[in-house]
Amino acid sequence: MNLANYITVIEDYPKAGVSFKDITTLINDKEAYSYAIEKLAQLAKEYNADYICSPEARGFIFGCPVASKLNIGFVPIRKKNKLPRETISIQYSLEYGIDELHMHKDAIKKGSRVILIDDLVAIGGTLKACAELVEKAGGEVVCCLSLITLKGLGGEEKLAKYHLKSLLYLED
Amino acid sequence: MNLANYITVIEDYPKAGVSFKDITTLINDKEAYSYAIEKLAQLAKEYNADYICSPEARGFIFGCPVASKLNIGFVPIRKKNKLPRETISIQYSLEYGIDELHMHKDAIKKGSRVILIDDLVAIGGTLKACAELVEKAGGEVVCCLSLITLKGLGGEEKLAKYHLKSLLYLED
Repeated sequence: MNLANYITVIEDYPKAGVSFKDITTLINDKEAYSYAIEKLAQLAKEYNADYICSPEARGFIFGCPVASKLNIGFVPIRKKNKLPRETISIQYSLEYGIDELHMHKDAIKKGSRVILIDDLVAIGGTLKACAELVEKAGGEVVCCLSLITLKGLGGEEKLAKYHLKSLLYLED
Repeated sequence: MNLANYITVIEDYPKAGVSFKDITTLINDKEAYSYAIEKLAQLAKEYNADYICSPEARGFIFGCPVASKLNIGFVPIRKKNKLPRETISIQYSLEYGIDELHMHKDAIKKGSRVILIDDLVAIGGTLKACAELVEKAGGEVVCCLSLITLKGLGGEEKLAKYHLKSLLYLED
């Protein structure tokens, strides 16, 4: 199955010059979604991880089924003021301005093996911030997985030390 | 397994008088998370649905693994300006003010059987709005599932026509 056939490319969204990759048409298709989760789970399985962590909200669409399939705990990484207990946080740069991600302070036992999963890696800023957050909590990021990596934007290089693997490598 | 033991109750959050049910400690535990997904999938299975729909972001944590486990397509219901293509939307009342939910216009084929899944039902406003959105798109809501229903807040009554079932019925 070629998963690329299920991605809808939207030109000039959310702004001129951007070629947006819409994954909702993939997850809408039962064969494509099941196949993607099965493939991600196969990649994740060999790392013998304690937790899957994903940033909200699209990361949950891939991270949660993989956690469930492999019988692993799931840790949500969320925007500010979304988690109800004490958090640790990290700020990271976006193209314009900064963003902030939070994780519950007690979410990861020290020394735990963690796999990060998101839908798409572009410049790699979000998953890099997630990795640093996991490390701040005392965990080890043993692998990063994404459905898509956009080629030539630096994400692969930025996440190389975290062993990024993707099911699709697409042109930006 | 008593899933209630994995829920963390936080008094006076997010404001005085509210007893918040934190599900992150349940999904953090691999046995509890797997067990919850397995039980929700068992309930969902008998409805022979075409799609699972969930509102972001916590709904994804339960809806996506059930969709994946049962080999069903998943349709995200999101806040304004989060979906990249043409949407249909619905406004609904919160305690203070109104909120708006969106779904891609082409996400559901007319006549499809849809199961709504969320983490928690309180007054039932969110899932009611989701159900109306699915109907607006031409789908039929054959069942609503949630991990938790809070007793005595009217959610069960409000969602009775959509056959609400939950794994836990907790005091508010």
